[in-house]
Amino acid sequence: MNLLPEPVTALVGALSRLPGIGPRSAERLALHIVQADSVFVGQLAAALIAARERVTACEVCGSLTESQPCPVCANPARDPAILCVVERALDVLSLEKSGTFKGRYHVLGGRLSPLNGVGPEDLRIGELETRAQAGAVQEVILALGSDVEGEATSHYLATRLAPRGIRVTRLAQGLPAGSGLEFADELTLARALEGRREIT
Amino acid sequence: MNLLPEPVTALVGALSRLPGIGPRSAERLALHIVQADSVFVGQLAAALIAARERVTACEVCGSLTESQPCPVCANPARDPAILCVVERALDVLSLEKSGTFKGRYHVLGGRLSPLNGVGPEDLRIGELETRAQAGAVQEVILALGSDVEGEATSHYLATRLAPRGIRVTRLAQGLPAGSGLEFADELTLARALEGRREIT
Repeated sequence: MNLLPEPVTALVGALSRLPGIGPRSAERLALHIVQADSVFVGQLAAALIAARERVTACEVCGSLTESQPCPVCANPARDPAILCVVERALDVLSLEKSGTFKGRYHVLGGRLSPLNGVGPEDLRIGELETRAQAGAVQEVILALGSDVEGEATSHYLATRLAPRGIRVTRLAQGLPAGSGLEFADELTLARALEGRREIT
Repeated sequence: MNLLPEPVTALVGALSRLPGIGPRSAERLALHIVQADSVFVGQLAAALIAARERVTACEVCGSLTESQPCPVCANPARDPAILCVVERALDVLSLEKSGTFKGRYHVLGGRLSPLNGVGPEDLRIGELETRAQAGAVQEVILALGSDVEGEATSHYLATRLAPRGIRVTRLAQGLPAGSGLEFADELTLARALEGRREIT
């Protein structure tokens, strides 16, 4: 016996396919939606469609945009000599929020993960090399995660880019801002010591 | 400067209004959706609309249904002498999954909460009394939460129903099935002792 009305079951199924939404969250959301204001539900459905239809990946950097190229790539004030390489479009947002980077971006679309069958050809690495080869790029900042796969991806990219005479850098590792030593794990402390700087 | 394309911002706004979805989850979901298969996004949007339009509250018991009255209320095999009172439509689902209840339901739509301005007139208590008064009901099982507001609501309902000669019961409190004493808090243990039963 199906305990929920069929449209609710269908909605639970669709919601469960979203990342981070388990079967119980999907059930709770679906039951909220059937009892929610129908104007709101209509707006939510329209927002889903509009976001999917109007937003695409920038043909140059791979970040999300409504126009081609994206506002960052189209902005002449952004330095074309510095490329910041990130895993996901969301990372561009995080870096833009920090407000300190004035160069341009390149979204890889993931990281190398041989165990999950993700090789260089599955990421936007060819596009990165093409951009690097075009001449304007002097520095590539690798802003990837500091876990094993992120590190491996950084090293792979460094071996591809450094021989072309491009300066390849990575984000500093160390204590998070505003955090005490007692919250840092040993590896973070080791990296923070390693990367220590003169107080000027 | 708006860092996200406008349709993504609109989608984040709509998703944040769902229960249990904070601004960061909404952002992650929205960025997933703009990059998801557009057939899936269309299905999700259609499922939202269909669930909202085709599912309504049962006019008799208040649970969610596509037909009036709901399948439980329309089922002659379900005992009309026993009413199980629950807070939310979701609770009907939980009880139906347990598969042991053969009576009918009554969804209150919440619980009494004077601090939040929820009084008896805001819940389906009038409807419950009307159903109880109609004569067929011999027992009302109060299946409300065992926190302060749930208990207060149970007591209020008991004072309204008991004088009509209806047997008013509540769910047992005690150890959860399959759980050890070490995971039970003191109040649960006290209730479990209080409600101890002969082993037959």
